[in-house]
Amino acid sequence: MEWPRQPGGIIDAATVLAANRAFYAAFEARDLDAMSDLWDRSERAVCTHPGWPVLRGWPAISASWFTLFTNGQHLQFIVTDEVVALEGTVAWVTCVENLLGDGAGPGGSVAALNVFALVDGAWRVVAHHGSPILARH
Amino acid sequence: MEWPRQPGGIIDAATVLAANRAFYAAFEARDLDAMSDLWDRSERAVCTHPGWPVLRGWPAISASWFTLFTNGQHLQFIVTDEVVALEGTVAWVTCVENLLGDGAGPGGSVAALNVFALVDGAWRVVAHHGSPILARH
Repeated sequence: MEWPRQPGGIIDAATVLAANRAFYAAFEARDLDAMSDLWDRSERAVCTHPGWPVLRGWPAISASWFTLFTNGQHLQFIVTDEVVALEGTVAWVTCVENLLGDGAGPGGSVAALNVFALVDGAWRVVAHHGSPILARH
Repeated sequence: MEWPRQPGGIIDAATVLAANRAFYAAFEARDLDAMSDLWDRSERAVCTHPGWPVLRGWPAISASWFTLFTNGQHLQFIVTDEVVALEGTVAWVTCVENLLGDGAGPGGSVAALNVFALVDGAWRVVAHHGSPILARH
């Protein structure tokens, strides 16, 4: 997968949105290489999957993706309600991950907050936080 | 409650940490005025409580705090594992909200990601996302 770069150094919401979509494309494709390319590799990277504790730093985060990508459950979802906020070289996106039921699972929706930072001209994920949306709210 | 300002325009991790602690102080005190002062009032503000959908904009967010502060459940917690990342005028904090059981509830832990932006010289919450940590991970 090609990483979305900013032609001519353009930093705008569209390039952030492209990065967010590349993240979900890598997730759905269970492509650890693509996922690795998307993340900031520094210690500041943080990741919280639904129900999980906070994982810090790329080694722990990559291990979690490896686990998710090899556990036999192929997650597919439609991402909606993407809203980008941008300030300087940091951007954050909120969206809803609408999981498609696979027969084994009931589907459901996950609320996500993804933070990106511009590193060497490309948006990298510095924080991902997902949590299940319960029907009662 | 006094809002932590940056004397002499200093922007550092300590001032972000002070803002994060003020957020939890307002939460625990069920102080809607203090909470209001901490948040960015623009449309970009987003808030996801555990199990809730994404709330956007201060009107919806303030209504959720009002509900939480008046539902008869007095949440108290010890915040641990605070880690601050800072880039330009944006900062994000990950931490764990360790809820103290009140007899009615079992306690438990919430993983949180809080994003702050510098607005008029003060850190304001632009995004809060909390999700319960399940024991199995």
